[in-house]
Amino acid sequence: MRNIFVIGVGLIGGSFALDIKKRNPECTIYGIDKNDGHLDEALQYHIIDEKAEIKDLNKADLVIIAIAVDAALDILPSILDHVSDNTIVFDAGSTKEDICLKVKNHKRRRNFLAAHPIAGTEFSGPSAAINGLFKNKTNIICEVEETAFKLQEKALKLFSDLGMRIRYMNPKAHDKHIAYVSHLSHISSFMLGKTVIEKEKNERDIFDMAGSGFESTVRLAKSSPAMWTPIFQQNKTNVIETLDEYINNLQHFKTLMENNDFDAVFNEMETTNHIKDILNGIE
Amino acid sequence: MRNIFVIGVGLIGGSFALDIKKRNPECTIYGIDKNDGHLDEALQYHIIDEKAEIKDLNKADLVIIAIAVDAALDILPSILDHVSDNTIVFDAGSTKEDICLKVKNHKRRRNFLAAHPIAGTEFSGPSAAINGLFKNKTNIICEVEETAFKLQEKALKLFSDLGMRIRYMNPKAHDKHIAYVSHLSHISSFMLGKTVIEKEKNERDIFDMAGSGFESTVRLAKSSPAMWTPIFQQNKTNVIETLDEYINNLQHFKTLMENNDFDAVFNEMETTNHIKDILNGIE
Repeated sequence: MRNIFVIGVGLIGGSFALDIKKRNPECTIYGIDKNDGHLDEALQYHIIDEKAEIKDLNKADLVIIAIAVDAALDILPSILDHVSDNTIVFDAGSTKEDICLKVKNHKRRRNFLAAHPIAGTEFSGPSAAINGLFKNKTNIICEVEETAFKLQEKALKLFSDLGMRIRYMNPKAHDKHIAYVSHLSHISSFMLGKTVIEKEKNERDIFDMAGSGFESTVRLAKSSPAMWTPIFQQNKTNVIETLDEYINNLQHFKTLMENNDFDAVFNEMETTNHIKDILNGIE
Repeated sequence: MRNIFVIGVGLIGGSFALDIKKRNPECTIYGIDKNDGHLDEALQYHIIDEKAEIKDLNKADLVIIAIAVDAALDILPSILDHVSDNTIVFDAGSTKEDICLKVKNHKRRRNFLAAHPIAGTEFSGPSAAINGLFKNKTNIICEVEETAFKLQEKALKLFSDLGMRIRYMNPKAHDKHIAYVSHLSHISSFMLGKTVIEKEKNERDIFDMAGSGFESTVRLAKSSPAMWTPIFQQNKTNVIETLDEYINNLQHFKTLMENNDFDAVFNEMETTNHIKDILNGIE
């Protein structure tokens, strides 16, 4: 693969660019981004070799879409219109049902692979791009059978070279489960941050009292609202379901406290303690 | 200080013992714990030099109480009954109002310093004890003026040697604010863990989908129920207040989503984003 196009040169797109360039120094990485300042930054950090536009995609061997999920939905049909028969296009979005539906009947559907690399940090933009971000991370691939054999192979080879483990799911199941293990965490973190900031806004030195536990639970509240708003919008039904269950569990915990049933409070925590074993599986 | 008694040889007590021994190799560290297995472990890990009992406290220069906050409440009067005039006793509990009240009229009140070192990990027991746990951490001290001058000085010297920064607060304010920046985080984490485990209990491989974001938000759900239940019990009123506000904020977020008001969803997140600046202050 000689001509790699990265659409969206932020944390995810930029990190793909860095890893690919490292393994294939002879390739040219082209950057496309609606934010020209980001393209300049990406050039400066040697994340991309050249700026490009959608009309240049005819020479692409690989196109990586790493932009907000609403923008990806808008632009994907036009990307597929511009690529050649042998181009593999994959996205990296946190929702999969809408994007698969969007190109279901596109004449170049077989050029597209719907992917969700479960990787990232709470930072964003080209300066957040790092080498090795995807090593030992899970990459969920949806509707793999809708992608042409040869192009599947190209993409899988790349993911394997970058050290990712692959899981195949259908888009509906992906969106449902990811709401629990990712989207809900972001809302719980944002609302925890909000609750504390609201209360303590006039007493900033209170945060001197905060330790690493607080930092850990609100870390995701640093995430980009521009990326996360369209994710919640596209996955609205599933996310609302997780929020309902989370709120019910919090209400129940509160009721146990109000009733002075601290044996039950203990049990609530002990039952959840085996999250230790589950988390041991996450690297 | 030659004779140091550590009551509760777990994460906090054990880490104090390790740091103190390192700086004062000539001192003897005595361990007291209702769990004899923990004392054996602590001996084996060279956290303590000898096992001891409450009746031995008459020879103590320093007593550190690092047990569950309900047990600390029970045992503190008896500890004070056994120590000599020159012994400084401090606790490390996450609630301060009840313990200060408990010894308000004790004849040896001036031997006691109410402290809360904001330090720890999600692990517990002697094997969790580590060197340097308190370095650059905040230590909240309550009712400092109730402690004898000379004994204040001894304790402050120790905290300073261990690299801690000191903040003085009254117990009521401590318990109110710590509910926001610590206790609420633990509940949000436990209930997040519960929500996901309940949903995914029949599909354990779903956790392959979980990334570092999920791990970060549920890390505190590994914490010890035996330590945390009495904290929630003693700080019930404040904790319920934080839970009310947190649940309201989550409900509001859900309502915005249900109303398709994603501009407002964006704003909710953007407003909270400046948690970045606040967290920069936490090491």
